[in-house]
Amino acid sequence: MRVPFADLLHHLTRALVTLGLSPDRAALSARLIAEATRDGVYTHGLNRFPRLVAMVRNGSVDVHTVPSFVLGHGAIERWDGNFGMGNLNAYASMERAIALARSHGLGAVALARTNHWMRAGTYGWQAADQGLFAICWTNTGRNLPAWGTAVATLGNNPLVLAIPRRTPQGEYAGGPHVVLDMAMSQFSYGQLEAYARRGEQLPVPGGFDQAGDLSTDPAAIYQTFRALPVGFWKGSGLALTLDLFAALLSGGNATHQISPDPMLESGISQIFLAIDPANLSAASELDRAATALIDQLHQAPRTNRGEAPRYPGENTLQLRETNLKEGVPVEDPAWSELLTLSAETSTSPHPAAPGK
Amino acid sequence: MRVPFADLLHHLTRALVTLGLSPDRAALSARLIAEATRDGVYTHGLNRFPRLVAMVRNGSVDVHTVPSFVLGHGAIERWDGNFGMGNLNAYASMERAIALARSHGLGAVALARTNHWMRAGTYGWQAADQGLFAICWTNTGRNLPAWGTAVATLGNNPLVLAIPRRTPQGEYAGGPHVVLDMAMSQFSYGQLEAYARRGEQLPVPGGFDQAGDLSTDPAAIYQTFRALPVGFWKGSGLALTLDLFAALLSGGNATHQISPDPMLESGISQIFLAIDPANLSAASELDRAATALIDQLHQAPRTNRGEAPRYPGENTLQLRETNLKEGVPVEDPAWSELLTLSAETSTSPHPAAPGK
Repeated sequence: MRVPFADLLHHLTRALVTLGLSPDRAALSARLIAEATRDGVYTHGLNRFPRLVAMVRNGSVDVHTVPSFVLGHGAIERWDGNFGMGNLNAYASMERAIALARSHGLGAVALARTNHWMRAGTYGWQAADQGLFAICWTNTGRNLPAWGTAVATLGNNPLVLAIPRRTPQGEYAGGPHVVLDMAMSQFSYGQLEAYARRGEQLPVPGGFDQAGDLSTDPAAIYQTFRALPVGFWKGSGLALTLDLFAALLSGGNATHQISPDPMLESGISQIFLAIDPANLSAASELDRAATALIDQLHQAPRTNRGEAPRYPGENTLQLRETNLKEGVPVEDPAWSELLTLSAETSTSPHPAAPGK
Repeated sequence: MRVPFADLLHHLTRALVTLGLSPDRAALSARLIAEATRDGVYTHGLNRFPRLVAMVRNGSVDVHTVPSFVLGHGAIERWDGNFGMGNLNAYASMERAIALARSHGLGAVALARTNHWMRAGTYGWQAADQGLFAICWTNTGRNLPAWGTAVATLGNNPLVLAIPRRTPQGEYAGGPHVVLDMAMSQFSYGQLEAYARRGEQLPVPGGFDQAGDLSTDPAAIYQTFRALPVGFWKGSGLALTLDLFAALLSGGNATHQISPDPMLESGISQIFLAIDPANLSAASELDRAATALIDQLHQAPRTNRGEAPRYPGENTLQLRETNLKEGVPVEDPAWSELLTLSAETSTSPHPAAPGK
C-alpha cells in the first residue's frame, strides 16, 4: 500500500508524541524516519519503528534525554548520548561536527551511550545537503563472527561516506550526493530471511553452513548464525578497527560490552566526522571532478550479466521522486501499529516541514 | 637468504643516494622501505624497490622535489607532492597531520600529485608510534573492475586505520598497535600469481572466470583481469568513495586520470587524518579498553578450521623481532640489484638510525 509522504510524517510525529517526545523533537525524529522510507530504505524507516517503540517501552531508549557535552579540544568533542533517541542523538552529533568543520576545516564528534540511529545513510545525506563531506559509523551488539571465530564476536558496524554534489540549480540541498551506507556483513539477517522466504539462493556467498563451508543457502546460514564479513578477513578487520575507534574515542562501550539482544541493544558508540571543502575548492571544481569520475564509471563496458555499474546512492533521488509522487510504500504490521499509536495522542503537533 | 637489518638499511640508503637523493632523505626513505621488509610486508619493502628505481629512471618519480603547501584552513591542509618520492611525501604528510592534530585535536592533509607510498601501513604505524589514531588512504591507477563493469575502472585504493597501544613500559613507540592495511581488492595480482605458481586454488573466490562466474582459480582470474572487490558491490562502492574523497579534497587526480600502467602510475592522490586522544582520555584507559576488546576476540570459540582470530597487525611485532634477530629475508633479483646500485655511490652516507 502507498500513502502520501505527509501522512506518514504526520502519524509518525503524533506517535512519537504519544511515546513522550516534545512536539519539536517528535517532528524531527519523524522526519528522519519518514525520509528513510521515502528514499527507499524500507528496512530502516517505518518498518524499524515498531522496534523503536518496543525499546522505548522496555526502557532501552529514554525519550526525554538530549546529548550532553563531555569534553573537547579544538575540532574534536566527546558527547554523551544519555541513552536517548538514537536518531536525534546522531543528528545533533552530525550537526555539531558540521559546525566544528565550518570553524576548523574539519570536525569530529565521538558519541557514547547512544541508541540505534536507524538508517545510517541519514547522517551522510544530512552533511552532504549542507555541502560537507562526511564519514560516520556506529558500533552495534555482536552479530557477526570475526574471521576465525565460530560465534558472533563483531558488530556489523555500518559505515557511511558522503560526497556532496549540487543540483543543476547550484544547491547542495537535494543534490545527487554520493552516499555509501555499508554494514560490514555481506548480508543482514533480514536479507537472509527475505531470500529464504522467496526460496532463492544468495547471488554470492553470504556465510557458512553447518559443515563450515561457504554457502549461498540463506537457510543454512541462518541455522549457523555465521554470516560473512565483507571481504572475509578484510571486513572482519575493518569492523574491529571501527569498533576500537568508536569505543575508545567516545569513552563508551565496545561491541563486546553491548547486549547482543536486538531489543536490548543500547548504549552504543558512534563517530561523526565532517569536512568543509569550501576553503579548499570552488564548488564548481568539485562538481566537475565528481561528474567526470561518475561519467567514466557509467561509460565502462558492462559485464555479460548486464548489471549497470552505479555509484553509491545513485538510485536515491529517483526513488524519492517516485515515492513523493505515488506515495510511500507502507506495510503491516508497522503501518497499523503506527496508526494506533498516532490515535492515542490528544495533542495535535504541527506537521513537520516537508522533508528536504 | 637472510641479511642483517642494518645491512639492508645501509645498502638501501647508498642506493638511494646513487639515485640522487640527499643523504638525509635517502636515510629516511631507506628506513621506511627496510622496515616494511623487517615487519614481514615483503611485497612492499625491498621487493618493491626495483620498481621504484625504474620509475625514478623513467621520470615518473622526481627524487629532488619535496611537498609544497597549497592552502589550508584550520585543521585541514592541501599539499602538492610535486611528483616526488612517494614514501617521503606520505611520511611528511602524516607528520603534518599529526602536528595539526596536536594543535586542533584532529588534523588532515590532502596530498595531490604524489607517487606510490609503498607499504600503506607505514603511515599508520608512524602515527600510532606517536600515540595518535590515524586513517589514511591512497588512490591508484585502474586495477579493479567496479561491480557491474567488465574492465578495470577502480583503483584498489589501500585504506589504513591505526589504533595506538603502549608497550608494557608505557611507551607508544614500538607498541602493539592495531593497524589495518587493506586494499579494496580481495587479492592483489601478485598474490594471484603466487597461488598460480604454487598450483593452489584460492581459499575464497577472488575474481571472475571467462564465463563470468566467480572463481577460486587464480589462473582463470588472471586471464580475465577481473579481480574481485572485497564484499562484491560493497567494496566497489567503498573504493569509489575513497577515490572521490582523495581526488576532490586534494585537487589532484582521480583513478581514471592516472595511468593504469604500473610503471607510469604517477600523480596519485592521498588523504592523511590523525586524531590525538591525549585530550580525550588517559592513556591507561585507552589501553584497558583496547586490551579488553582484543582479549574477547582471542577467547572466542574458533571455527573447526582452526584459524586463530587475530587483530589487524597482530603478527607484526613478533615478525619484527624474529627478523631483527635472525636477519631480514631478501631475495634476488631485488637484493642483487640493490647491491649493484649501492656500489655505484662514492659517498658514504651516515647509516640511518636503527629503525624504531
